[in-house]
Amino acid sequence: MLQSLREEVLEANREIVRRGLVLYTFGNVSGISREDGLVVIKPSGVDYERMTADDMVVTDLDGTVVWGKLRPSSDLKTHLHLYRSFPAVGGVVHTHSEFATIWAQARRSIPPLGTTHADYFYGPIPATRELTREEIEGDYVHATGVAIVDSFGNRDPMEAPAALVADHGPFCWGATPAEAVHNAVVLEAVARMAYHTIALKPDSAGITQALLDRHYKRKHGAAATYGQS
Amino acid sequence: MLQSLREEVLEANREIVRRGLVLYTFGNVSGISREDGLVVIKPSGVDYERMTADDMVVTDLDGTVVWGKLRPSSDLKTHLHLYRSFPAVGGVVHTHSEFATIWAQARRSIPPLGTTHADYFYGPIPATRELTREEIEGDYVHATGVAIVDSFGNRDPMEAPAALVADHGPFCWGATPAEAVHNAVVLEAVARMAYHTIALKPDSAGITQALLDRHYKRKHGAAATYGQS
Amino acid sequence: MLQSLREEVLEANREIVRRGLVLYTFGNVSGISREDGLVVIKPSGVDYERMTADDMVVTDLDGTVVWGKLRPSSDLKTHLHLYRSFPAVGGVVHTHSEFATIWAQARRSIPPLGTTHADYFYGPIPATRELTREEIEGDYVHATGVAIVDSFGNRDPMEAPAALVADHGPFCWGATPAEAVHNAVVLEAVARMAYHTIALKPDSAGITQALLDRHYKRKHGAAATYGQS
Amino acid sequence: MLQSLREEVLEANREIVRRGLVLYTFGNVSGISREDGLVVIKPSGVDYERMTADDMVVTDLDGTVVWGKLRPSSDLKTHLHLYRSFPAVGGVVHTHSEFATIWAQARRSIPPLGTTHADYFYGPIPATRELTREEIEGDYVHATGVAIVDSFGNRDPMEAPAALVADHGPFCWGATPAEAVHNAVVLEAVARMAYHTIALKPDSAGITQALLDRHYKRKHGAAATYGQS
Repeated sequence: MLQSLREEVLEANREIVRRGLVLYTFGNVSGISREDGLVVIKPSGVDYERMTADDMVVTDLDGTVVWGKLRPSSDLKTHLHLYRSFPAVGGVVHTHSEFATIWAQARRSIPPLGTTHADYFYGPIPATRELTREEIEGDYVHATGVAIVDSFGNRDPMEAPAALVADHGPFCWGATPAEAVHNAVVLEAVARMAYHTIALKPDSAGITQALLDRHYKRKHGAAATYGQS
Repeated sequence: MLQSLREEVLEANREIVRRGLVLYTFGNVSGISREDGLVVIKPSGVDYERMTADDMVVTDLDGTVVWGKLRPSSDLKTHLHLYRSFPAVGGVVHTHSEFATIWAQARRSIPPLGTTHADYFYGPIPATRELTREEIEGDYVHATGVAIVDSFGNRDPMEAPAALVADHGPFCWGATPAEAVHNAVVLEAVARMAYHTIALKPDSAGITQALLDRHYKRKHGAAATYGQS
Repeated sequence: MLQSLREEVLEANREIVRRGLVLYTFGNVSGISREDGLVVIKPSGVDYERMTADDMVVTDLDGTVVWGKLRPSSDLKTHLHLYRSFPAVGGVVHTHSEFATIWAQARRSIPPLGTTHADYFYGPIPATRELTREEIEGDYVHATGVAIVDSFGNRDPMEAPAALVADHGPFCWGATPAEAVHNAVVLEAVARMAYHTIALKPDSAGITQALLDRHYKRKHGAAATYGQS
Repeated sequence: MLQSLREEVLEANREIVRRGLVLYTFGNVSGISREDGLVVIKPSGVDYERMTADDMVVTDLDGTVVWGKLRPSSDLKTHLHLYRSFPAVGGVVHTHSEFATIWAQARRSIPPLGTTHADYFYGPIPATRELTREEIEGDYVHATGVAIVDSFGNRDPMEAPAALVADHGPFCWGATPAEAVHNAVVLEAVARMAYHTIALKPDSAGITQALLDRHYKRKHGAAATYGQS
């Protein structure tokens, strides 16, 4: 079932290891077939080195496993809530990549401090609110997704395809699993540079709206001019 | 003698090199056979590249060498005190890994600032008290073990399987030598992120008890749900 | 057309990847044939791994493509303005290398704090002014070049072959594309060390004019003594 | 001439590259034959990749080349002054390794903040005074050696085999070229950890004399117990 998407999700999981975003099994990537209403996700706690496409787990949007022998990632319900809430999302990735996690642990949104940020994220990368005790003791993994969605309010989630879960770490997304991982790699670079920029200039005000517009729209939307047509 | 445990300890010593936790010969891993009351440890000052399982040294719990041609690691007595004091420990590792050592040199415990920490360490990772002059000039290596054990008081040492020896560096442990090394790798990542979190947000209060419980118990104890059953 | 220069520019683009100065496609190198008045530059948004010399684009100094099938780098006009304004420049490189970008985002020039700096840069490495809203919304890429040239005033641009574009990142240059890349590699090392020097000693005054003269002139100019004659 | 020492010096020069202590040609190692009163040193500005033992240069203790086709390292006179002043030194290495250079640029000695330091350096690693204008404009490279020797006063230079030349970077030494390089590698690790320890605990007082004695003497001198006998 969904052989091609399972290959794609496997490859995206391997890519987060190659890019140095995860230690041991601290991360997971999923992808969705919108047509089938089915999600493919990494199994829980399996070594990346020996994972195959047949170890991927297929669930419906309520989390019921419809294919696969293994238990899905323990973060499944966060992924599902993002797919249900953000209809343009085709892939989701969660890591504990170092500097994105540092901002998450500091419960601070990453302000746009340069054009690297603006090329990918149209405004701040939000840190979520802290979860309440009731959320943590209740349906915790689902509540994590709710907090991410809350942090966007009316913003288009595709314009800043990442959130920093307070005290935890980043979730990123994209049109495909590969694009979600690409965004996670860039997020980590942006998070490292923002951390050090603020240390060097604590009163950094960030870039102007004009510069944010110029860079973001150069790469995104109908008027994009970057790359080959 | 204890061929299989010697292979396991050798492999764990190689792993700390591969993971970037040691420079030259600045680290050592041991393992214990509780059944035999015997400890296998790396020899002192031998290059990791040319070590074989036959270079490992076997001692009893008092430190008497019962097998092997080489002198045991100079940190042997610290390992032995941990095995005698913490009956669930099956492997011990000492490194000078960069950020764990930085916290140790600052004589600060690492507070739980995020879920990466909470997944492995149920509460602060203790820094020990400084040793007294008498301890340093007397049975120093043994006293190092005493200070580690003191830093736990009534805490279960398996719930925070690491300590930061003041002015020195980390010791970690686990049910096996491999698990001890795994914990040392995670400790280094947690120490790096905690260092930078505190720089970004000096008044970080750390995570709530509810979040600590949720993450730690997801991976440990009877109610654990992480991984494959 | 310009086969040899295209090979040289390709190789220089590969070198910025090997040296860890770029992530994905965030960088570009160009070279000029002063004799022909033609510039060779990397195409826009093409993966470094699959680029060949035939993918390079040749333009005149006004930016008209005179050879090649692909669209040139979106930063082309900045490169062109540097070639027109700085006649000794034979190669230009733009990256988002981490610490040079951090200084650019902090809008701070890098002061000469040691001899590593002085061996390559005769005085501060200038951060440009911020671009105005009119510049950003108008001919933005050209205006970036103008701001770089403005930041040099009457200084010889070959004596400090780099500038930090405010809120963006570094541009570097040299007599050839390879030399421009060499300077970009050194800039990143200098930027890392300057960042941490200032953290360790916030009131760093920088080196004396005598030391700057001694080191810079040891490697540059008629009286240079470094290397083989 | 001195074929074996030339091989040894070549290998030590390669080791500083493998260990990440140098960028391009920013470093040099030499060795001395005390019996012959001759020094072997790396040539100036030659790529490490294509250097052979035949490219090494042999000079006497006054700097006169007695063998070899190439010009010696531009830092030769500093090496020579160290050999003349410190009779136990058999090898000298100069690098611009990142954190040792940062301390040098900050003109700060590295205090002993932990046992990693104490295992190699018996007390602070001195930063030299700044050179005077007369020294810089006169016999600069020689004066650099004088400043290093001055920074030791009556201390035994073998008990802290490194100095940080103000505004420049580290020189290290040892009984052999290989040992000098080993010390340079450890210095960089110690410098990194000291930098971050001070950031985490600005009032770090450093370790006690008792702990310094215990660790240093465990590895050095007649009573050393570390390693295999």
